[in-house]
Amino acid sequence: MEEKNYRPMWKDLGLDLEGHDQLLAVLGKAYKDIYLSQENRPKAMQYLDFVISEAHGLRIEELMEAKKKGNKVVGTFCVYVPEELVLAVGGTCVGLCAGAEIGIDEAEKVLPRNTCALIKSFMGFKLAGLCPYIQASDLVVGETTCDGKKKAYEILNDYKETYVMEIPQMKTERDRTLWRGEVVQFKEKVEEISGKKITPENLEEGIKIANNKRRALQRLSALRKSTPSPISGLDALLVNQIAFYDDPLRFTKSIHALCDELERRVKEGIGVSRNGIARILVSGSPMAVPNWKIPFIIETSGAVVVAEESCVGERSTRDLVSETGDTLDKMIDAIVDRYFKIDCACFTPNKERTDHILDLAREFKADGVIHYSIQFCTPYTVEAYKVEKVLQEKGIPILKIESDYGMEDVGQLKTRIEAFLEMVRK
Amino acid sequence: MEEKNYRPMWKDLGLDLEGHDQLLAVLGKAYKDIYLSQENRPKAMQYLDFVISEAHGLRIEELMEAKKKGNKVVGTFCVYVPEELVLAVGGTCVGLCAGAEIGIDEAEKVLPRNTCALIKSFMGFKLAGLCPYIQASDLVVGETTCDGKKKAYEILNDYKETYVMEIPQMKTERDRTLWRGEVVQFKEKVEEISGKKITPENLEEGIKIANNKRRALQRLSALRKSTPSPISGLDALLVNQIAFYDDPLRFTKSIHALCDELERRVKEGIGVSRNGIARILVSGSPMAVPNWKIPFIIETSGAVVVAEESCVGERSTRDLVSETGDTLDKMIDAIVDRYFKIDCACFTPNKERTDHILDLAREFKADGVIHYSIQFCTPYTVEAYKVEKVLQEKGIPILKIESDYGMEDVGQLKTRIEAFLEMVRK
Repeated sequence: MEEKNYRPMWKDLGLDLEGHDQLLAVLGKAYKDIYLSQENRPKAMQYLDFVISEAHGLRIEELMEAKKKGNKVVGTFCVYVPEELVLAVGGTCVGLCAGAEIGIDEAEKVLPRNTCALIKSFMGFKLAGLCPYIQASDLVVGETTCDGKKKAYEILNDYKETYVMEIPQMKTERDRTLWRGEVVQFKEKVEEISGKKITPENLEEGIKIANNKRRALQRLSALRKSTPSPISGLDALLVNQIAFYDDPLRFTKSIHALCDELERRVKEGIGVSRNGIARILVSGSPMAVPNWKIPFIIETSGAVVVAEESCVGERSTRDLVSETGDTLDKMIDAIVDRYFKIDCACFTPNKERTDHILDLAREFKADGVIHYSIQFCTPYTVEAYKVEKVLQEKGIPILKIESDYGMEDVGQLKTRIEAFLEMVRK
Repeated sequence: MEEKNYRPMWKDLGLDLEGHDQLLAVLGKAYKDIYLSQENRPKAMQYLDFVISEAHGLRIEELMEAKKKGNKVVGTFCVYVPEELVLAVGGTCVGLCAGAEIGIDEAEKVLPRNTCALIKSFMGFKLAGLCPYIQASDLVVGETTCDGKKKAYEILNDYKETYVMEIPQMKTERDRTLWRGEVVQFKEKVEEISGKKITPENLEEGIKIANNKRRALQRLSALRKSTPSPISGLDALLVNQIAFYDDPLRFTKSIHALCDELERRVKEGIGVSRNGIARILVSGSPMAVPNWKIPFIIETSGAVVVAEESCVGERSTRDLVSETGDTLDKMIDAIVDRYFKIDCACFTPNKERTDHILDLAREFKADGVIHYSIQFCTPYTVEAYKVEKVLQEKGIPILKIESDYGMEDVGQLKTRIEAFLEMVRK
């Protein structure tokens, strides 16, 4: 995949070199088949192609260089971890590997078979020694968003120390108090591992960097409201995926360059798809790299994905942290409030989410919604019932899908999705 | 099952009379086959036989009589609901139907197929109109112990208003603060539905009634430490199950009478089993009436169950509420502290539980532990890994089982359990 020899670095990181070679070969082929085969891609996607080709190479080298200078790497699995606090001390947040069916035999030695693919994946990546990001992390942060992750982190902790943030389950004042305590404790943890104090000055900077990244992604999202969509759902998903591990400043600049190109396309009426094909909103469980299965099936079945109501998607970019705080306390409050708005299915009740899905469907002129749950992801699979009910009441077509990371069900999913798209078009 | 005609009452409660007849017939037969076929049962179990035969009859009639006098019925699914507060206003807590594979087709219309049997069961009982307890309840209380229940209550709420208590996920001071707030809010809810104020006087009484019930169950549990055990695991489980819906004063008295008989047995060396047969600790997910599958298989395979490390078992009776509080605030604190000790697998980390399983195995001279998880019960299935690890380190044999409420796997489970018992005896 790359010219430079990163093997000494991978070896130092404790990766299983042979398994890692195989992983890169498989990923490279999948990327070629799924991404590079797309027609009429924006030119600026070349930056993303480059980033993904260097995801285990140059990017890891950059992180190792930063570490040498004393800057810390914080590995995360969830959009609840306040990146601002890590950025404040010159650190980097990286999303950890969780999107591929890998090391599954190892994972199933410590986890029940009936565990969601994302959880089995991060455990498998660690146990099989295939994720350079977790190896490079100075701190791994878990969170209590679902039973599976909450309990799996106890086991992961046997192999890599895992700091767990408690996410409340409701949105009362009591929950906000608990959550604020968690944010403050995380701030202290970040100060401890970095040896640096978080100040109003550096936190203001951290908030700006994170907000600017979100603004670029919001701009990208807004451009997808156009008909025809100037970018495929696959490419837009990739951008949102890479947002979790690329350098935030460089990434923000590159996404604005992509948006400039897309704006020109919109003006000229150029899109990735012809007019009149179905516009689909994908909603549900997060899709981590290289989990491109659902949008790939949709977009090779004659539709275009126009938005992802998902943590790897607009849920993580929708809200900004208020920049009006002038004291550390007010800034912390702004962070607490921003993250407390996240409408993950882990909350009960979670009417905000169903309301928001309706809003998105309208704003993006979606012809239908495909609700995707990772199999055994209880919060999203159960909440899918409410989502379906609300959408049906408004006459918006919905298809509920449960799937893991395997490829065995691709044919069956394609049949169901094609039938759904046929129905939507009528 | 009963002489008296309860059909008008069941009709008034909105039960599906035909389905309910079938349910009672199946339960009656199962009880006869599993319970009444046991040899050498204590005579005092006749009270329990009577209670179970009248579970949908006389007991419901009693509750309806109490309701006429203005006393409220509170239906629960979990040992976190503080019974003391309900008893304080003259109300009754009842465990709701959740132990039988019933109404499953109805349940699977609103819940994913991959949902634990207990959750599908309570939903099925409600949707099929077969649980007189939920029909009689003035308040149904759910709680956020697991993803499945948390999200299923949102759906149950469409059919019967469900008040949900938030259970924290860790045991820090912040969590205790949140939990205290939940207990105070529940107190207010109980006052609201009953129209009665909770005072130090009536709460003291409520605490005493609940503690006395626990003391009787603790006495029963302690007697099972004897060799041979004076009571079968099946009978002891039944006692713990009935504790959730019988009248607490009458129940407490009856269990002490049972214990008197068991004490005589212990003195005379009489047991339900011969010396030398394997003593098994069952640990894991709750076993609600009529989920007698696992102890039935164990005890018909030549072993005796000596304790249940489970919510329907010693977890719900282990700790008392301190009776030293002399103000309402102190009593509330005592309640908060007592319930906060519960070591459900929903907490992270949950070392208290694995420590406690080791203690129980020693105290009850268990030859082995059978860890039972309801299939798809994520907290217990994942935690089983840690339980196994800790027990193996101490050289205590463990068998991990996952099962639902169906009977298809009985043969396979029996083979596995027999092999385990064979190994344990060596």
